[in-house]
Amino acid sequence: MTRRNIAILGSTGSIGRSTLEVVSRFPDRFRVTSLTANASAALLREQIARFRPHTAVLVDEEGARALRGTADGSTEILSGAAALEEVVSRPDVDVVVSALVGFAGLRPTLRAIEAGKDVALANKETLVVAGELVMERVRRKGVTLLPVDSEHSAILQCLRGEDPAQVTRLYLTASGGPFLRLPPEHFASITVEEALAHPTWKMGSKITIDSATMMNKGLEVIEAHWLFGVHASSIEVVVHPQSVIHSMVEFADGSIKAQLGVPDMKIPIQYALCYPERPAADHARMDFARLGSMTFLEPDTDRFPCLGLAYRALELGGTAPAVLNAANEVAVRLFLEGRIPFPAIHELIGEALGAHRVRRDAGLDDLIALDAETRRSAERSSVRTLSSH
Amino acid sequence: MTRRNIAILGSTGSIGRSTLEVVSRFPDRFRVTSLTANASAALLREQIARFRPHTAVLVDEEGARALRGTADGSTEILSGAAALEEVVSRPDVDVVVSALVGFAGLRPTLRAIEAGKDVALANKETLVVAGELVMERVRRKGVTLLPVDSEHSAILQCLRGEDPAQVTRLYLTASGGPFLRLPPEHFASITVEEALAHPTWKMGSKITIDSATMMNKGLEVIEAHWLFGVHASSIEVVVHPQSVIHSMVEFADGSIKAQLGVPDMKIPIQYALCYPERPAADHARMDFARLGSMTFLEPDTDRFPCLGLAYRALELGGTAPAVLNAANEVAVRLFLEGRIPFPAIHELIGEALGAHRVRRDAGLDDLIALDAETRRSAERSSVRTLSSH
Repeated sequence: MTRRNIAILGSTGSIGRSTLEVVSRFPDRFRVTSLTANASAALLREQIARFRPHTAVLVDEEGARALRGTADGSTEILSGAAALEEVVSRPDVDVVVSALVGFAGLRPTLRAIEAGKDVALANKETLVVAGELVMERVRRKGVTLLPVDSEHSAILQCLRGEDPAQVTRLYLTASGGPFLRLPPEHFASITVEEALAHPTWKMGSKITIDSATMMNKGLEVIEAHWLFGVHASSIEVVVHPQSVIHSMVEFADGSIKAQLGVPDMKIPIQYALCYPERPAADHARMDFARLGSMTFLEPDTDRFPCLGLAYRALELGGTAPAVLNAANEVAVRLFLEGRIPFPAIHELIGEALGAHRVRRDAGLDDLIALDAETRRSAERSSVRTLSSH
Repeated sequence: MTRRNIAILGSTGSIGRSTLEVVSRFPDRFRVTSLTANASAALLREQIARFRPHTAVLVDEEGARALRGTADGSTEILSGAAALEEVVSRPDVDVVVSALVGFAGLRPTLRAIEAGKDVALANKETLVVAGELVMERVRRKGVTLLPVDSEHSAILQCLRGEDPAQVTRLYLTASGGPFLRLPPEHFASITVEEALAHPTWKMGSKITIDSATMMNKGLEVIEAHWLFGVHASSIEVVVHPQSVIHSMVEFADGSIKAQLGVPDMKIPIQYALCYPERPAADHARMDFARLGSMTFLEPDTDRFPCLGLAYRALELGGTAPAVLNAANEVAVRLFLEGRIPFPAIHELIGEALGAHRVRRDAGLDDLIALDAETRRSAERSSVRTLSSH
């Protein structure tokens, strides 16, 4: 078996760490050639010592200088955001695990595709912001782009061996987050701590808040559209608090296929890296009798307007999802910083989307400019929103 | 599209009627060339008038004579059990739907395989009694044998595009039947009427009683072993009263795939006939929010000993499953005739299995002789069993 050389964008985050666990299990399959982190210097140092990559990037310049001081010289230490794009294009990389959070993941992911690398995609925003652009380059370059998200991995697995023309519906399951049963009048007083306590999955703070607002599921609907070529009207969200069914596909003959398992990101990460193989792994196994029951309910878009906003952005098309994403990133940050209340998240996004004039065929530079512009106006708008609460 | 010529063994039974409904939906895909029934002359007459097959068999001689009197001459009417084997071998047949009930299905199904016909298999007993023999002939003749049972169809669908070497477990789901929650002390007084009231599926009386004793699931475990080459210890039964998940497959990487849908036999029948295509059909769709929940529990082999007996027969191998099946057929008939109480079903089977000396490499004639012999001794044994109740 030829070992595949892996670059991990965001190796110190939740997905990055799980990816390294998966990679460690299969030393005959994978070699880590590049690791990158934003600012977690201490953890990156440990990872460098353990995996001995050719290259490591710490975006934070100061941290990188300190890291260089302690490195033994066998790993080249780079710094700055541009270095991310450099490492993913190097010839010692076969596959890039894109696990950065937010819009920041777009450029290096696109760069990896352009350099002809296969991509295991955990960064949702790449496809949300620039789905058309990204998928067009994937096709043009003939690379493989595989989802790492448990939902999209489930759909990919259900589609295996099937004719895409016979797909009639995708069901994305949603845990519903910590506020699934919270009465509407309590949403205004949700604290950051409450919002960060996800019932099923342990994840980074951005994605955990997205999960609490259900924007996470909205972003996944947009991603699913691009990954699987299914129209928004045929992508349905089903709330399933146990998160055992990771998503489903309905076919023209009325049959539905689902992928299930314990909520463990290592399973979809391994699937994306080993695809189409399924080497044995000692992940925890399902015990259906112990599980007892799985429940299902419709998402409540009144209490979780972010989900409806995401569908609206997808239906508007063009640059609308990029605006949705930028406004959401700002709103989530402001909420995490304690500067806006929970319901202001969807208000800010709704405002941004309402004010936006959709453009078609935006290039990467247009999207970058639009992202910056949307962030600025969402920040400004937050001051007004705040004053009204 | 070339139309496929279909022969239906058992066209007046539940599966036979559903098959004709499926076939009627796709007149450009299928042509019914042969219909067969045991004794339901009136319904067979209607089916002949509607589908105008080349040949029809009514096993019952007297009924066949009456049918010949009213036929318009465009359909040849045959009679007797041997005629079943004749029609499935004719050149005007491409695929045989084997929907007879019980051991009677074995000979014509084997004959169809030997004649090079593809088989859509709804008759459980064929594989239970002669799995090794049947699968060997399927391979030798290069025909396709596809399951019609919803459970095995589910597994087939989950395996699509997957590497069989990566399968670690099959989960067969079971509704649990009407006595899932009945306390043990009430089993002795179960009436025929109660046993015939299945909570989810509307089926023939033999299979409905098998479902009440859970022998049905036991027979399916044995079938699954032969169809998918999985060892008994890796086939797990999960009780799932809603019958929405039709079965599941676990892979080496910990991922599980399931096939789901409304409980409608037309979906797996269509899948077996149209495989690998999934033409659009207007079967009822799932509504997960309306379903609300799916529950799971372990099967209780104390209250349902038939399930344990089936595993035991499969592990014993050789002729043991044939004895299990023959004893079960007799026991179910005796129960339906009001001649033995419900718990005597498993007692009779347990006794037959306990008394049997397993033989290997039994041929068809040996199995036929063994079947007859087991039936005779089970009948005799029932007299003793009855007197002890």
